[in-house]
Amino acid sequence: MRVSNLFTKTSKTAPADEVAKNAQLLIRAGYVYKEMAGAYSYLPLGIRVVEKIKQIVREEMNSIDSNELIMTSLQRREVWEKTGRWDDDTVDVWFKSKLKDDTEVGFGWSHEEPIVEMLKQYVQSYKDLPISLYQFQTKMRNEKRAKSGIMRGREFVMKDMYSFHASAEDLEAYYNQAIDAYKRVFDRLGIGEDTYVTFASGGAFTKFSHEFQTICDAGEDVIYLHRGKNIAVNEEVIDDAVAELGIDRADLEMVKTAETGNIFNFGTQKTDEMGLYYTDSEGKRQSLYIGSYGIGITRAMGVVVEKFSDEKGIVWPESIAPFLVYLVRIGGEEATAHADALYDELTAKGVEVLYDDRDERPGNKFADAELMGLPYRVTVSDRLIESGQYELTRRNSGEMALLTRDELLDTLN
Amino acid sequence: MRVSNLFTKTSKTAPADEVAKNAQLLIRAGYVYKEMAGAYSYLPLGIRVVEKIKQIVREEMNSIDSNELIMTSLQRREVWEKTGRWDDDTVDVWFKSKLKDDTEVGFGWSHEEPIVEMLKQYVQSYKDLPISLYQFQTKMRNEKRAKSGIMRGREFVMKDMYSFHASAEDLEAYYNQAIDAYKRVFDRLGIGEDTYVTFASGGAFTKFSHEFQTICDAGEDVIYLHRGKNIAVNEEVIDDAVAELGIDRADLEMVKTAETGNIFNFGTQKTDEMGLYYTDSEGKRQSLYIGSYGIGITRAMGVVVEKFSDEKGIVWPESIAPFLVYLVRIGGEEATAHADALYDELTAKGVEVLYDDRDERPGNKFADAELMGLPYRVTVSDRLIESGQYELTRRNSGEMALLTRDELLDTLN
Repeated sequence: MRVSNLFTKTSKTAPADEVAKNAQLLIRAGYVYKEMAGAYSYLPLGIRVVEKIKQIVREEMNSIDSNELIMTSLQRREVWEKTGRWDDDTVDVWFKSKLKDDTEVGFGWSHEEPIVEMLKQYVQSYKDLPISLYQFQTKMRNEKRAKSGIMRGREFVMKDMYSFHASAEDLEAYYNQAIDAYKRVFDRLGIGEDTYVTFASGGAFTKFSHEFQTICDAGEDVIYLHRGKNIAVNEEVIDDAVAELGIDRADLEMVKTAETGNIFNFGTQKTDEMGLYYTDSEGKRQSLYIGSYGIGITRAMGVVVEKFSDEKGIVWPESIAPFLVYLVRIGGEEATAHADALYDELTAKGVEVLYDDRDERPGNKFADAELMGLPYRVTVSDRLIESGQYELTRRNSGEMALLTRDELLDTLN
Repeated sequence: MRVSNLFTKTSKTAPADEVAKNAQLLIRAGYVYKEMAGAYSYLPLGIRVVEKIKQIVREEMNSIDSNELIMTSLQRREVWEKTGRWDDDTVDVWFKSKLKDDTEVGFGWSHEEPIVEMLKQYVQSYKDLPISLYQFQTKMRNEKRAKSGIMRGREFVMKDMYSFHASAEDLEAYYNQAIDAYKRVFDRLGIGEDTYVTFASGGAFTKFSHEFQTICDAGEDVIYLHRGKNIAVNEEVIDDAVAELGIDRADLEMVKTAETGNIFNFGTQKTDEMGLYYTDSEGKRQSLYIGSYGIGITRAMGVVVEKFSDEKGIVWPESIAPFLVYLVRIGGEEATAHADALYDELTAKGVEVLYDDRDERPGNKFADAELMGLPYRVTVSDRLIESGQYELTRRNSGEMALLTRDELLDTLN
């Protein structure tokens, strides 16, 4: 893509009411536009990052035999009343509205109830199980405050997955597969090393449920970390964890984190509440075991920006950068011809290039490159053409090298 | 994909309250699930069709230099009040709700106003123009009645595109490019021959605006068609059209149609209402010219089903079929080994195959194949293996052929 075709412009300032670093940087660099607190539009650069994160998550969910679908945002009152979660006193993040005939409808903040309701139509026998389904949904949550940029939104993209099993053992095995798939996701997003599976409260069978918490100064959570044993514990279960896991409280380090994923074993609670059953091999009616697994897609994007940025801007990991290369042209006709040719060649080879073809001062181009945070900057200038060289700068290390055309193509291919 | 991994099951009946043929067939075949009237979940087969339609539209919008983004569903009252379209008396399809502090919010049924508002941040000079942007949005429309299945929803996917220009001539040129891109879209969806650019009311500069109407018995519109001159006219402008286009009213044929796309030249009306301006090369403030271009993605899917189906089920065009091939295995171990190997080989070659690996009666498998409507059915059976042959049946013509393995691979590749 050519920068001249981007309608966005970089800016030295973010909206005055925007306190979150992730949103400030993403707005300044032209990735997102703030529609209102907690609701952001994703501009051409931003949607590329979102889609890359989704594709990583999609591949890993497919790898554990989950199937993609997309449910509705519109929700029926009757479905949620079965579990008592329609009530605004129980769930305080509903957006609700009314049909023309005055029927109340809600906008989905989660999809456990409707997916259980739907499966009543398709599940009869043990032969129909297990089932695993996931979606990328735009969730609506009427949050009282929304000050964390894209890390906590009133409208945000979430991958939610649900699995349905004939036995506790089968759910347990799948649950562990899902933990591994989540670890692969966070590794690929570049935050694997700082992401911990924590012991949290609320497990259905064991004492604990699990959260994925990523070390992040802007996070809203705190975990206690045993670096030696690689164990992480949420505050609310710390007494139990110290006792059960045989760790010394003195060895625990308190760190600020952001919840990037959560997995939850519902047991048969939802089944029983909502009346979803299957018939076993002996013809007897049985409850289903349900697991629920979430990853906030846009939240993960926000966490990556919080963690990988410096005073000059964002520093994207290669796996989710909107483009791999920021190509800067400096100089006149000859530099233009060279840069145009390089852009065409790289693009033809499948290398994703954002080409700064504007008639701007080099300093502005370099500043924009750093703010946008693509992994590689390549400079083509009159002076470099004379010596047959290209300047390659890595955004993460700042390391700069002068390369021949062949060396450059080798590095970027 | 293996049919044994599909959680959906085909059904001989659709919900009693579902009167639209498109929804009846899509529900029975496991493409969609009806959450409520006008709101359908897209199941694993259904989401594949939606994504294929989106990809065709994406490629054609990219080909006219439009850039993809995604705006928010949540809408601010102030933005829509500027054009008088917040009022429920003016726009009767709003879903509205409230933030915790009682601020009213709406759910986007269209995005002209917010995109114009957003561009105020990015457009200053004539050098910033033209701009063309599009999105695939889940639109929310509080329709009084929703009886047309996925052809008219309360929640549905729409591609909406907006273009911004410095002059009427520039908009006009782009508008014509968009018409051509739309024609390519409808050609690729398999409905090009039956889709007409009609003369409709409401043009800003010329007497007419334009709709894309596709001949469809389930459609809600009527157009008047001059087959000889390939001219189509909406009822509300027929007097003007007869006069201006020099056609004889007697030659017009009335046909039922569904609106599959619309393009609209706003002129400078929105600019002026909302205060979006640019500075021309002489430093003078000028109004922008705006075009708006929509294609209902899920509506197009519904129209295709209405048009391409028979008493046995759906007949997908190859371009948007969820899979190209429905592979049926009949027989014991040898047939299974053969079918497994063929499935692996075709999949490795990039051919999309839905493999019916169930232990079902052949008659049920054939009936499901016809209901789901994939372009090719391939049968592997003990008898056929003996003669070294595969049975290939085309869903659209019913034509059947016995092919060698090489002939089969040639046909499907």
